[in-house]
Amino acid sequence: MVKESKQSGGLEWRINVPNETAAKVLVSESKSQIRVCNGLRGLIVGFMTRIWKFLQKAWSLAVREPKKAIHGVKVGVALSIVSLFYYMRPLYDGVGGNAMWAVMTVVVVFEYTVGATLCKCVNRAIGTFLAGALGLGVHWIANQSGEKFKPIIIEVSVFLLAAAATFSRFIPTIKARFDYGAMIFILTFSLVSVSGYRVDELFELAHDRLSTIAIGTSLCILTTMIFCPVWAGNELHYLITNNMEKIADSLNGCVVEYFGINENVNSKDEASDKVSQGYKCVLNSKATEEAMANFARWEPAHGRFNFRHPWNEYLKVGALLRKCAYCIETLNVSTNSDTEAPVILKKHFSKYCIGLSSSSSDVLKEMAVIMNTMTKSTKIDLMVNEMNDAVQELQGVLKSLSKQPIIRDSKNGTGGGNKSSTTMVRVMEIVPIVSISTLLIEIAARIEKGVEAINELANKAEFEEGTKKSKQSENQQNSS
Amino acid sequence: MVKESKQSGGLEWRINVPNETAAKVLVSESKSQIRVCNGLRGLIVGFMTRIWKFLQKAWSLAVREPKKAIHGVKVGVALSIVSLFYYMRPLYDGVGGNAMWAVMTVVVVFEYTVGATLCKCVNRAIGTFLAGALGLGVHWIANQSGEKFKPIIIEVSVFLLAAAATFSRFIPTIKARFDYGAMIFILTFSLVSVSGYRVDELFELAHDRLSTIAIGTSLCILTTMIFCPVWAGNELHYLITNNMEKIADSLNGCVVEYFGINENVNSKDEASDKVSQGYKCVLNSKATEEAMANFARWEPAHGRFNFRHPWNEYLKVGALLRKCAYCIETLNVSTNSDTEAPVILKKHFSKYCIGLSSSSSDVLKEMAVIMNTMTKSTKIDLMVNEMNDAVQELQGVLKSLSKQPIIRDSKNGTGGGNKSSTTMVRVMEIVPIVSISTLLIEIAARIEKGVEAINELANKAEFEEGTKKSKQSENQQNSS
Repeated sequence: MVKESKQSGGLEWRINVPNETAAKVLVSESKSQIRVCNGLRGLIVGFMTRIWKFLQKAWSLAVREPKKAIHGVKVGVALSIVSLFYYMRPLYDGVGGNAMWAVMTVVVVFEYTVGATLCKCVNRAIGTFLAGALGLGVHWIANQSGEKFKPIIIEVSVFLLAAAATFSRFIPTIKARFDYGAMIFILTFSLVSVSGYRVDELFELAHDRLSTIAIGTSLCILTTMIFCPVWAGNELHYLITNNMEKIADSLNGCVVEYFGINENVNSKDEASDKVSQGYKCVLNSKATEEAMANFARWEPAHGRFNFRHPWNEYLKVGALLRKCAYCIETLNVSTNSDTEAPVILKKHFSKYCIGLSSSSSDVLKEMAVIMNTMTKSTKIDLMVNEMNDAVQELQGVLKSLSKQPIIRDSKNGTGGGNKSSTTMVRVMEIVPIVSISTLLIEIAARIEKGVEAINELANKAEFEEGTKKSKQSENQQNSS
Repeated sequence: MVKESKQSGGLEWRINVPNETAAKVLVSESKSQIRVCNGLRGLIVGFMTRIWKFLQKAWSLAVREPKKAIHGVKVGVALSIVSLFYYMRPLYDGVGGNAMWAVMTVVVVFEYTVGATLCKCVNRAIGTFLAGALGLGVHWIANQSGEKFKPIIIEVSVFLLAAAATFSRFIPTIKARFDYGAMIFILTFSLVSVSGYRVDELFELAHDRLSTIAIGTSLCILTTMIFCPVWAGNELHYLITNNMEKIADSLNGCVVEYFGINENVNSKDEASDKVSQGYKCVLNSKATEEAMANFARWEPAHGRFNFRHPWNEYLKVGALLRKCAYCIETLNVSTNSDTEAPVILKKHFSKYCIGLSSSSSDVLKEMAVIMNTMTKSTKIDLMVNEMNDAVQELQGVLKSLSKQPIIRDSKNGTGGGNKSSTTMVRVMEIVPIVSISTLLIEIAARIEKGVEAINELANKAEFEEGTKKSKQSENQQNSS
């Protein structure tokens, strides 16, 4: 403990500096500094790692779906062209000149798929045109009715039309096709109504907007259709095809996993992961399918699809696939149930269940082939028959259960299971097997409905007939 | 046949008028005229009926969901106020002045729910601000680098940023919260970059845009929050609650319909319709739930919900409800199966199955009550226990099937069913009952998980504790 006392010019100060405490204070101060430093460093490191993770996620997305990265490049190109187009003409003395509308159109209208872009373009054009014409009409009426009533007429018309158009966006038919058009209608009508009193200026405004929107939309349409176009129809087609394959794999994987003898735990985990991933995608694909079908309707003929390709049929097929997926959900529960069926019964059923599931998934895969090649299959009926045979076999096996002696829990029961050569089965033990079998039979029935839907689709979309070659090869397969 | 010949001034004309043909031609002409008339009338009538039907549909929608009609009125009011605001000031000498941005903001940003509107407002503000600042920065750099490089720098920056921002909209985290902001970012950046060379004008542009956007957004927020606000959080809360009630009704209806003796065919149809409608809504509610939860996060405290209400927990509860719905889908199949269980077995099982389904749906209804009152239930654990007891009873009945003599199809089988007093059952006939029972047990397991999720939600959202009153009434119920 050091006490320092000094007197100079009436000023006295005393410093009590207990050495230990001073050291402690110094240490704790430096500690708190270090803590703050560490905290800051932690924050910065945390921030950097978050950004790094975000970039990694973005990169993996770009690698997984390069189309999406290309879409970004396409938007960049379209915007550069629009801005270039306006750089060349010195039109920019006034802020918010005409260029703005073209730039805005490109940014707002350019969507991922061609169909969505076309839908927005057509909506924007129709909405702008209708609202512009109506706005001019209302302006004319308002001008005729004198200065006093003019603002009232315009205000009331804006209110009524905006309310009606906004409400119309909730009506399903409008929502599906003209949602964006209704919004543009409100926007343009309000702008035209509000933006001034002189009609000559209004005509100029309308002309400017229409011409710049035409430039923007045509540029969007060209860019989206020429560079790596992403067709909504194509996406829907492959989404449905992929869903078929996923359900086929899930179904087969689920049943094989249950009945098969898995020696390797890792491979089982991977397989079950694949299974659960597969059908779960299908469960929630309704919204995507409907959006795609909506956009596909706007698309012109492209690749193998005509203008009036029956996209609605795709939705029906998709709905049936989803119904299969619901069953597989329950199947997955049954196969993971706690009650384990006896090995002997499992072996007895495995042949028929695996037979049915593999013939079902064969049908699904053949459906996927029909979709992929857009050729009517000559084999599909045969395969459905095979599937139905497998269903009947499984039903037969279920019936034959009645012939097997079934052990009873109570000792004083009469008869049953006295021979050592026959297999003993408890009723509770057959529950999971019975559930799985009935589910498989139900899935087969749903797949058959799916085949009917596919045939309907093939007829409406005028898929090619199966070639003789495939018939010959099929005959060869049958004979061999 | 009349032949007329006349010569006057070198001009000759001859008219062959075969009477019958003329009549026929006249008749056919008048017929075709009538046909055209009829066709036109048909077209007009068809058009009118379509419009009439559309209006009827719109009216019924407005009656069913008056909130949506009110939303239309709200948009009309907001637009009228914005336009009024600008009428009062004679700002409109130039076309596309500042008013435009306010009108545009109102039209584009005003959404059905408060959360969606707030989300778009915040996105628009952040996007505009960031892009404006970045645009000014790029402009400054471009100005420093000389006239030659200036357009190149600006073009390259527009291309790169537009491409990056467009691509970022595909990344799930950005898509969920900042999709609109990314679009506004691209739009503003392009406009600022393209729209001129002089920075003083740019500042003016930025100031104008920001102030008008501020006017538009604040007007939107005020209108959407003051007049009949539709809170996304509220909607999500009641969507989930309704889903619980629908599943409870579907489950009970489905089981009662299968086991019950329906004397009236019409009432059965109505009931089954109600059943199928109920759970099918839940199957496809995922997209709506996620959108609502996304918007609800933006909402301030309102009604019984705080700002940081655990909306994510609602999604978990919703997912579990959907899992129940998948099971009910399969249950519906089993109850409509062709194989009819024998009446005696049905009667034997009906007590336990209906018991389980009614206790399950009681639990679901109690969950709905918890949600509705936002009060932790003192009864729910008891009810879950009751449900589990019912599960064990049903499992016991399934086990006791083993004790029942089961008839065999083959005549040379040993033992079984010799007593006339015992009930004879074929294995195939128990299949539907067994399936239904296992499904009911599975649904009960899923409901239990749902209860856990609800409890988690109740803890995180700090639901009120159940009052003593309800405890007392519960005790009274138990003792009586």
